Amino acid sequence: VVGSGVLERSGALLEKLGFDGPPLLVSSRQILDLHGQALVDGLGRRYGSVAVVRMPDGERAKNHSTLRALYDGLFEARADRRSWLVAFGGGVVGDVAGFAAATFLRGIRYVNVPTTLLAQVDSAIGGKVGINVPQGKNLVGAFHQPGAVLSDAAVLQTLPERELASGLFEVVKYAAIRSERLLRYLEAEIEGARSRRPEVLERVVWESARIKSEIVSGDEREGGERMALNFGHTVGHALEAATRYRRFTHGEAVGWGMIAALGFGRELGLLGAAEAGRLETLIRRVAPLPPLGGVALDAVWEALGRDKKFRSGSIRMVLLPRLGASRVRADVDPAHLRRYLERFLAAGRRRPAAGARRRPQAGA
Amino acid sequence: VVGSGVLERSGALLEKLGFDGPPLLVSSRQILDLHGQALVDGLGRRYGSVAVVRMPDGERAKNHSTLRALYDGLFEARADRRSWLVAFGGGVVGDVAGFAAATFLRGIRYVNVPTTLLAQVDSAIGGKVGINVPQGKNLVGAFHQPGAVLSDAAVLQTLPERELASGLFEVVKYAAIRSERLLRYLEAEIEGARSRRPEVLERVVWESARIKSEIVSGDEREGGERMALNFGHTVGHALEAATRYRRFTHGEAVGWGMIAALGFGRELGLLGAAEAGRLETLIRRVAPLPPLGGVALDAVWEALGRDKKFRSGSIRMVLLPRLGASRVRADVDPAHLRRYLERFLAAGRRRPAAGARRRPQAGA
Repeated sequence: VVGSGVLERSGALLEKLGFDGPPLLVSSRQILDLHGQALVDGLGRRYGSVAVVRMPDGERAKNHSTLRALYDGLFEARADRRSWLVAFGGGVVGDVAGFAAATFLRGIRYVNVPTTLLAQVDSAIGGKVGINVPQGKNLVGAFHQPGAVLSDAAVLQTLPERELASGLFEVVKYAAIRSERLLRYLEAEIEGARSRRPEVLERVVWESARIKSEIVSGDEREGGERMALNFGHTVGHALEAATRYRRFTHGEAVGWGMIAALGFGRELGLLGAAEAGRLETLIRRVAPLPPLGGVALDAVWEALGRDKKFRSGSIRMVLLPRLGASRVRADVDPAHLRRYLERFLAAGRRRPAAGARRRPQAGA
Repeated sequence: VVGSGVLERSGALLEKLGFDGPPLLVSSRQILDLHGQALVDGLGRRYGSVAVVRMPDGERAKNHSTLRALYDGLFEARADRRSWLVAFGGGVVGDVAGFAAATFLRGIRYVNVPTTLLAQVDSAIGGKVGINVPQGKNLVGAFHQPGAVLSDAAVLQTLPERELASGLFEVVKYAAIRSERLLRYLEAEIEGARSRRPEVLERVVWESARIKSEIVSGDEREGGERMALNFGHTVGHALEAATRYRRFTHGEAVGWGMIAALGFGRELGLLGAAEAGRLETLIRRVAPLPPLGGVALDAVWEALGRDKKFRSGSIRMVLLPRLGASRVRADVDPAHLRRYLERFLAAGRRRPAAGARRRPQAGA
């Protein structure tokens, strides 16, 4: 469900979807302070009083100890097999609460109420839940589909600027891999999205969620089609890891990753210069990308090697044959990719990120 | 796969079932000392060298810290999404390793090679995996079906006497709820099972596994039919919990639980005296049941209230309308059940357990 005022209508919506008995609300203090009342009221109208289980937020809280504290909270709230959770927060809350739901009493139902644009368009859809472990991010988890996802444009009004942009980069990704129509809409309305016009946000959330759920429902476990969602993420993840998740938001890293994939695709003879330029222009209109200065090629290359999807030796990358369509290339030559990335990083260092029209590999 | 010498043939069997690439063997030191060589040789014949990840064994090791150590072991062994585990041990190893498989990289395949009779006929079949938490047993876990279950009668030769009997009580349960034919076989061959004649063990493991997998495949998540497996377990679990899992093996508690359910069913007008007596006689031929002396009614009653399946207020119990068939009674009167249990415990205190033919509630 995507709309404005969804929190207030949550109880009625969920009752209609077959959720009966009182929900257990799982959220962080910060989110509860900002939007808790609206959701508690919305749920309370149908379900009476709502038990709240608090958890810490932020990527560093996405771990075993938060998960165990969450189990304890569920036991304290006397949750049983028929209980259901409402995960209310960004990606971390959704992933940890969803994993708790997947494993508490061997699995109970849950509903996702994402409060960031990134969670609304990405992590809340598709059933991937889990935690980080010392060896890496999201390496322990499950596939557990939420019974419903309620996305309210109203909660995005309080989102920090950079987090809003982070989600918009993912929206651009969906357009790039699946929908030239969404791409045109974004070209026309990107300013409306950045200034948070509710009807624009609703539209981009709806279209993105639709694309993701179509892809995911055809391929829950990531054998084939789901791989398309990885456009911009191969290099993006590596940039995040190489900078210890401190320099880029996820979306910014994906922004750079898409630009890298466009350039690399150009070198393989995919996508014309005009189309590649058109997409890069849109990416750069979302928000300025932090420059790549100081990002070491070796660190990026090592991070690529650690990537789950890279593990088995063969390098696969998602590239665009045209705007609105994607293709997985399984025959990527590692030496070529490494040479390309060297030039890509050098170009991203040299030029200021904002407003540039030329692709970063143009000088190579 | 049920047979003798299955460990030695494991590599060939699993290759035929589509398992390729090297397995990761998860087991405990004790099991590896007893039977590790046979399995490592069997796997090695097809898969070359086999990496071994050790874990502690025993109910007290079935916890979060063992699970996390297991994840660490898998990372150290460089497991990836295409890796598969071989869980080699009793119920604890199977449950924890199976849960690790369910959640490592959001789920990898695994094979169960159970080394106790109880695991071969019960926990290895059906996909229930998980760990204990401070709030109770098996309260965190998942449903994750093994890709294969390999049960070798040879490993049962080293099983302690009481553990063998523990499994045989479960075998009697399968006969009671589903197969009068198996019941007759047990009546004829119970001594052969107790003296571990391989062909008798193979037959009872095969029949039990068949019955359990038939029930489970029709009802993986325990809505309805799977409930039949709970015959003897409602009171059995309560007896185990009321004595802090120290007095009875699981099977012994189930033995008492079946006797209790028979008597209670008699009071509700189910099952004739002759049939009830026939089943109780078989139960008592499996092994002597530790007496119920000192087991407090209040402790049993409290444990019943904590039972997952009892949680929601309504008391449901599996009873037998005739031998080889089961029925779930959802209309159990709590006051009646409590009065009955009082008499049942008193009768189990008064009389020595072994050899008795009369039902314990006969004096009531």
